[in-house]
Formats: sequence, structure tokens, C-alpha cells
Amino acid sequence: MTDTLALVPAGIDTYRQPVVYMNEDCHICRSEGFAAQTRVRIDLEDRWIIATLNVVGRGAWLDVDQAALSASAWAALGARAGDKGAFSHPEPPVSASMIRSKAYGDRLDQAGFAAIVSDTLDSRLSDLELAAFVTACAGERLDEPETVALTRAMQGAGQTLDWGGRTILDKHCVGGLPGNRTTPIVVAIIAAAGHLIPKTSSRAITSPAGTADTMEAMAPVALDAAALRRVVEAEGGCIVWGGGLALSPADDHFIRVERPLDFDSTGQLVASVLSKKAAAGATHVLIDMPVGPTAKVRSEKAAEALGVRVSAVSNALGLNLALHISDGIAPVGRGIGPTLEAIDVLAVLRRAPDAPADLRERALDLAGHLLDLAPDGVAGQGRDRARALLDSGAAEARFMAICEAQGGFREPGTAAQRIEIHAPHAGLLTSVDNRRIARIAKLAGAPRQKCAGIRLLVRLGDRVDEGQPLYELHAETAGELAYALAYAESQTGVLTLSEEGP
Amino acid sequence: MTDTLALVPAGIDTYRQPVVYMNEDCHICRSEGFAAQTRVRIDLEDRWIIATLNVVGRGAWLDVDQAALSASAWAALGARAGDKGAFSHPEPPVSASMIRSKAYGDRLDQAGFAAIVSDTLDSRLSDLELAAFVTACAGERLDEPETVALTRAMQGAGQTLDWGGRTILDKHCVGGLPGNRTTPIVVAIIAAAGHLIPKTSSRAITSPAGTADTMEAMAPVALDAAALRRVVEAEGGCIVWGGGLALSPADDHFIRVERPLDFDSTGQLVASVLSKKAAAGATHVLIDMPVGPTAKVRSEKAAEALGVRVSAVSNALGLNLALHISDGIAPVGRGIGPTLEAIDVLAVLRRAPDAPADLRERALDLAGHLLDLAPDGVAGQGRDRARALLDSGAAEARFMAICEAQGGFREPGTAAQRIEIHAPHAGLLTSVDNRRIARIAKLAGAPRQKCAGIRLLVRLGDRVDEGQPLYELHAETAGELAYALAYAESQTGVLTLSEEGP
Repeated sequence: MTDTLALVPAGIDTYRQPVVYMNEDCHICRSEGFAAQTRVRIDLEDRWIIATLNVVGRGAWLDVDQAALSASAWAALGARAGDKGAFSHPEPPVSASMIRSKAYGDRLDQAGFAAIVSDTLDSRLSDLELAAFVTACAGERLDEPETVALTRAMQGAGQTLDWGGRTILDKHCVGGLPGNRTTPIVVAIIAAAGHLIPKTSSRAITSPAGTADTMEAMAPVALDAAALRRVVEAEGGCIVWGGGLALSPADDHFIRVERPLDFDSTGQLVASVLSKKAAAGATHVLIDMPVGPTAKVRSEKAAEALGVRVSAVSNALGLNLALHISDGIAPVGRGIGPTLEAIDVLAVLRRAPDAPADLRERALDLAGHLLDLAPDGVAGQGRDRARALLDSGAAEARFMAICEAQGGFREPGTAAQRIEIHAPHAGLLTSVDNRRIARIAKLAGAPRQKCAGIRLLVRLGDRVDEGQPLYELHAETAGELAYALAYAESQTGVLTLSEEGP
Repeated sequence: MTDTLALVPAGIDTYRQPVVYMNEDCHICRSEGFAAQTRVRIDLEDRWIIATLNVVGRGAWLDVDQAALSASAWAALGARAGDKGAFSHPEPPVSASMIRSKAYGDRLDQAGFAAIVSDTLDSRLSDLELAAFVTACAGERLDEPETVALTRAMQGAGQTLDWGGRTILDKHCVGGLPGNRTTPIVVAIIAAAGHLIPKTSSRAITSPAGTADTMEAMAPVALDAAALRRVVEAEGGCIVWGGGLALSPADDHFIRVERPLDFDSTGQLVASVLSKKAAAGATHVLIDMPVGPTAKVRSEKAAEALGVRVSAVSNALGLNLALHISDGIAPVGRGIGPTLEAIDVLAVLRRAPDAPADLRERALDLAGHLLDLAPDGVAGQGRDRARALLDSGAAEARFMAICEAQGGFREPGTAAQRIEIHAPHAGLLTSVDNRRIARIAKLAGAPRQKCAGIRLLVRLGDRVDEGQPLYELHAETAGELAYALAYAESQTGVLTLSEEGP
């Protein structure tokens, strides 16, 4: 009895969870007792994956002697059209029992976390099992030694950049703000100051732009570890996409389950941040925590609690760490969307008269704090030094050199389609709905369309006249512009103008 | 801008979780920012569901102006070809915050559990959220008051049968044994004794037969509440499929997530069992716990711990409960598979000389214990009364009357295909691998094919000669027989014969 089927791509994106589709009349489903949601092992040559089974009805789109693979399963198995896969029941993952004991309230050691991380990367654990792990660690259920163990296990599962014992600076922002694109400016200043800062950033997942998307509007960011090293050795810093580098690779899997569950887990947040920093080879790390009602960190108190744990785990890992608490109430700069944020970044680096002051000041605060943290730093003097490096043009020059080293600087483009949104009446701008402003930018095409997004023309506290432009919509196609406009016009209070008497 | 798409059946079985498939170029995905794994609300007339999105690539099998629904989503929405569904972002379920606080270690009250149960039934909660709930309750994380609250919430979400204050007996077996089909015999005896016992049972999920499958080999079991009542009022008892009655309907959703996670949760096990018994209107319940290394309850100690909780919660619910601990080491009777188990049941009821003694003795133990528990019972006398009712033919007569009332008795059929498996050498039968014996029965077609399965011809402890038949394989088709045979012949130690010297 053969247990092989012809593999075909299902053309279905199930995000990261591998899914295999088999015909209900398939002899393997019958004989192996496979049913919907069964975990199935598929072997192809020396490669294998474990996928979740969905059963396709007879007469639907799948032949009885075929098995279709979701996009992630097809890629993970490295299948090609015509390949025949061998199907079997997978061994139960060893780490399932560790997730179970954690769920029962036991403590796990590093070996336990390492087994869970390794089975996660092999997708031996289903999304249900990952959700169970995340839940078992939720709230304060990871103590400090467990957080250290999880951080080391996550770091150890990927590569760690070796900088030969030199001082490596790094920064991380816990929970972004729209337009808060300080990283390229901070990296340029720190590198110009003669320090090493190999910065890896993420692309947008739910926001209109991630730092990697914004940087990509100015230079290539998809560098491998060797290219990253060349850039940093030559220019002292880089701003590259971390996704290709396998630094703490299990983190993406945990985040994909944590996000929909929306669990606050101090231990997992700390392990997520610090495992990536440790894997990047950082020795001195500044953690920026914007605090605000709609930010990830909602209160000073929450920031302090998180700070205590992150500091303790950093010490255990031998990282020098400083916390920077900033205002997380309003969007930063003018642009929302990759290119429009890049334009703000360049305006600050170029000392343009109209450069957004709030973005400049935030970048100087962070760069200054990071310079204070460095081994040769003198507390309180970093900010003056940062300003000098920015105002002298040294930071701009270094940023251009970094872009060239990453593959060449390009001036951010401009969108083909633009339209201004005007104030319906006069008033004082008292609030901006970050969530809906971000949604309008996404409807306009950001981050998929690099030039798409929003350019704010007013700031909190501005007096606005009736008919005065509030913001510009930017899009690549007339359709997307119309779509974003229709939504914007259907909404009230995206920007709130206090009515004023005569 | 329209937010409707033509609905088509995807013909994909994702088990119970509703999934919607949309083209990556679909204008709604773009404009709403829907991506793989997004939770999507679909409205059709006055009905709606919440489904998880899978994105189908351009050029694959789905048009850009269509949305395909998984089997469970199609059924839940009651869609018909040509319907147009309206798509939107669902409100976050209110119970998500309760799952979160339970995960953080807080205690929940009945209102909290009721919200979770209600959102579960509306499929407002994703499988990830259900897994989080199950994990947050795992081990001993539900205390006794929470277990009572969860039980009441689960019962309250479905219908409860009202028997006008009369005494209602019931039994439940925690974790089945292959062939352990005592229920039809016990119900017949209890009803013959003049008691009311409205028994609801489940179909097989992972085993070759459930009690409902076995009973269905002799009479219809898919009765609604009104029909169930008619049968019980007329004959005192019934053995029907519980799936159609909406007694504690959330239980199936929790079980579907608990099974793959394989979590032991005392609180959820107790709530699952007792919410169904309370919903059936039971006043006096006997819980049978087979204890054995491969049974659900592995040790006397585990049985006692479970017993303490189940008794305490029963008291809080006003249920009179007794525990019955039985031997869970070996399969019971000869048949494995719906019809073959039905033949064992009838042989016991008919007092056939070759009726399996172990099944008879287990049924008498349980019926006796239940008669002792009844208000008019006298401790220790129940078993003699049970034996008298069985030996006099009163139980058989009552069982036939129940079958007629349920829609008509039918004599179990015989499989078209049979083959004997012979002993490879002489020896003493020292063990039976329940797991692999069950798998062979499933390969032969059980429970899908009612007559398929295995008939054991030897018992533990029998001396067997070389070439003596060990068991019969029964199947409906030559192909399934060959398939089961090929697997059986590829295995050693399904039945272990100790080698013996000359």
C-alpha cells in the first residue's frame, strides 16, 4: 500500500501555519484515519514538514490522488510541481509535555524552553499548542529565571552576530507611534559619533509603515548577515530588515499567536526584545517606551514594572541597558506611510527649515541617552554631542554613506495621486485619532505602495480656519485614492476641531 | 463602495472552525486591510457568522468577486448558491477580556463563564482563544466554585429536559474501553425495574464505535427532544444520540480544542460530564471510571481525586452521585465496531450461552450500583435485582420495546467480507494492544461501515495453538478488508502470545 500523493500548490495563504488539503476519498485519509484538523507529516526527499489537514469534498477542486499545500507548507517543504510526498502520522512533539507541565503551573528550565522553541521552528507544534504555551506564560507566569531561560533559548535557536568583543550599541522602541521614525536619525548620529550600531528593524504588520519599509524608500534593506557586517565595518551602522537574518527566529511564530490573543506577557515581551538584541551582538541597549492611553505601554506604572524585569534580565544576559520613557500621545512628524516618513527623516538630517521639530527632538533625546550609556559616555553630555553631530551635517553625511553601503541611496519619490482634505469649520485641533488616521493611510495603499499614505498639514493645538487643508492623501492609483477618500469622508472626528463661537 | 461578495461553497472541511476564502485581489481585502488569519464577520439577511480568513492567490480557484466558505461556515450561515454576503470587521468578543483575566490568574464567576460559552456558540471566539481558555483552566486552575459556575453556564446555554420533579437515573463512563458497551444493557435493566433513564450518548470521534453508533445498528438514535420524551414516558428509558439535542452544546467546542492539546483539566472534565447530566434532567447519576494504564483514568489515586471534585460539584448542583471504579485494562466483550458490539449486547440480553461473560458482569455491576443509588434502593441488594431482571428476560423485553419506540428494532447485519487471523505459533495470550486493535477495526471501515470491525476469538489468559484463529476481520468491501489485513500482517504484538517450550 503506497502512502504517497502528488503535491500541488493550493494557492492558499494560511499565514505561517502549514495546511495540507486532501480529497475526502483519498485512500490515505481513509487508511490512516486522517480527518479534518489531523496533524500530518509529509516527507519529500530529505525534507519534511508537519501540516494541519483540511479535507476537500469530492467533486471540488482537488483530485483524489493529489495533496494541495498552503503557501507556507509549499515553501517550507521546498516542493516543486510533480513531486510526490510521503504521508504519515507525526511523532508527538517532545515539547508538548513541557507546554502541558507549564500549563499545570510547573516552572520550565532552559532545556524545556529550548525544546519548545525548536519544535516551534520545525512547526511540530500546532497553533493551538502555541496558543497554549503563550497562555501558560501570560501575565506574570514567567518568573525572572524563566524569562532569562526563554530569552537564551530564543537567541540560541538562531544565529548570533559576533563583533569580536567590541562595544555594540542598539535601541528598541516598545510599541510604535504613527510616524515615530527616529531610528534612521539615531543610527546616523551614533555611527557619526564613532560607535557601532548594527540596527535590524521589522516591516509593518498592522501599521502603515515599519522602520524597514521607511528605510527601503531610501536604500535596500534586505541584506544578509555578511552584507550587514560589511556595511557596519565600513560605516559603523546600518538600518536593515531583520526578517532575513534569523535572529531569534521563533519570535515571529510566538508573535503571530500573541497578537490575536492580545495577551500582555511581561516575560515574553522581554524575551522577544532582548533575545533579538543579544542575537545582534548588542552590548549597550536603550529601550524607548512611549507611554500613552493608545500606546502599548499605557501608564508610567506599567512602564516601571516592565522596566524592572527588562533590567534584571539584561543584567543576567550581560547587557548594559537603559530605559527611555517618552510621550506616546500623538503621532510624530508629518508623514504616515513609508515614503512620507522617509521625507520627514531626510528633512531632519538635512536640517531643512520645515523639518518636523518633534521628530528631531525625539531623535536627539534618544541619541543623547544612548551616547550617555556608551562606555565613554558622560551622563548628561550625550544630547549636546548628538545635536552637534546633527547640526554639523556629520549625521547626514554618515546616513548617506550607510545608504550607499547598503546598495545605494535613492531620493524618496512622490505619489501619482494627491488630494487635500479641508477643515469643515474653524476650530482648535484638539485630538487626532491615530487608529483611523492609520487606517486611511492603509486604504490609500500604505505600506504596499511605498509612496502612499498621509501628510499631516496641522499639529495638535493649531488654530484652523474653515476650508484650511488638514492633511493630504497620497496614493499610486486613482482607485485607491478614491477608496481612501470615501472612507475619510464617511468618518467624523478623525481630526477633532473644537467648535468656536463668533 | 460595496462590501458584499457572492458566496460559494469551498467544499473544504475545516472541522468546526468556520473559514472564509477570499481572493488576494478582492477589493474588500484591500480596503478593509483583511489578511490571512483576520477574523471576518459575514452577514446574510438576518444571520451572521464570524470566520477566519484564508487568502487565495490570483489565478487559483477563486474569482475576485467571490468568497468561498468552509463546510462549517456555509452550514452555520445557512447560505445558498447565489447569496451575497456583507463583510465587515467583527466587534471584539466581550468574553475575550474574561479569557485574558483568567489567563492572568483571576477567578471567573458564572456571568464570566456564561459570556465565554455564549461567544463560543456564536463562534465569536477563534480556536486560538478557545485554546487559551482551555489552557487557563488546565490542571487545577478551576477551583470548586468556578467548576460549579462553568457547569451551570454550560448547562444554561442549551436546553434542559424537564421531568416534572420525578426521579431520573443516569450513568456516564469516563473514558471508554474498546467494546465496553454496557449502556444498552444497563438502561434496559433500569427501565425494567420501573425507573426513568433517558440516556443520551455520543458517536465515535476517534474510536471504532460510540454507544450511539452501536445502538444505531439496532434502532434509530437521532431523536429530537419531543421524540425522546415520548419514548421515555412510554418505556422508561432510551438510548439516543445526544448530538441533536443541544444539551450543553458548548461542550463539543471545548472538547475539539482539548483533545489535540491533551490537557487534563479536572474542572473542565467535571463540568463537561455534569452539565450534560444536569441538562438531561438527571437526579441520580452513576459515574463509571475504568482505571488502567491505557485508560483515561490511570490510577486509583487519580480516580479518587477526580471523585472528590465530581462529588462536590454534584452536591452543589443538587445531583445525587455515586462513583463506580472498574478494571480498565483489557477490551470488553468480543466485538469491536458498531454491529459487532451490538451482537455482544444482544447476546447478553438474550442470555445466549456464548454471551461474553465480562460484558454481562460489568453491566450487572453498574445496574446494581445504580439501583442501590435510587431513592427506593437498599444498599447491596441492587445487583441481585439487576441479575433477576436480566435472567428473567424482563430486560430483553424492555430493550426490544425501547427499540420499537425509537423507530423499530433491526437485527444487526453481518459484513460481506470476513477473514480469520491465525496464531503464528502456540502460546499464552498475555496482552492485547487496544490502540492497534482499534486501528485495525477503523482500517476495516468502522464506524463509517456499521458492520465493519473485529471479532475477538480469544481472551486474555487463553492457551492458543499454532494456526488457531485469534480474531476475525469484518469489512463491507474487499478493498477495505485487504487494507486492514495488510496493516494487521505488517504488525507484530497486536496480540502477544508468550513463547512456550516443548
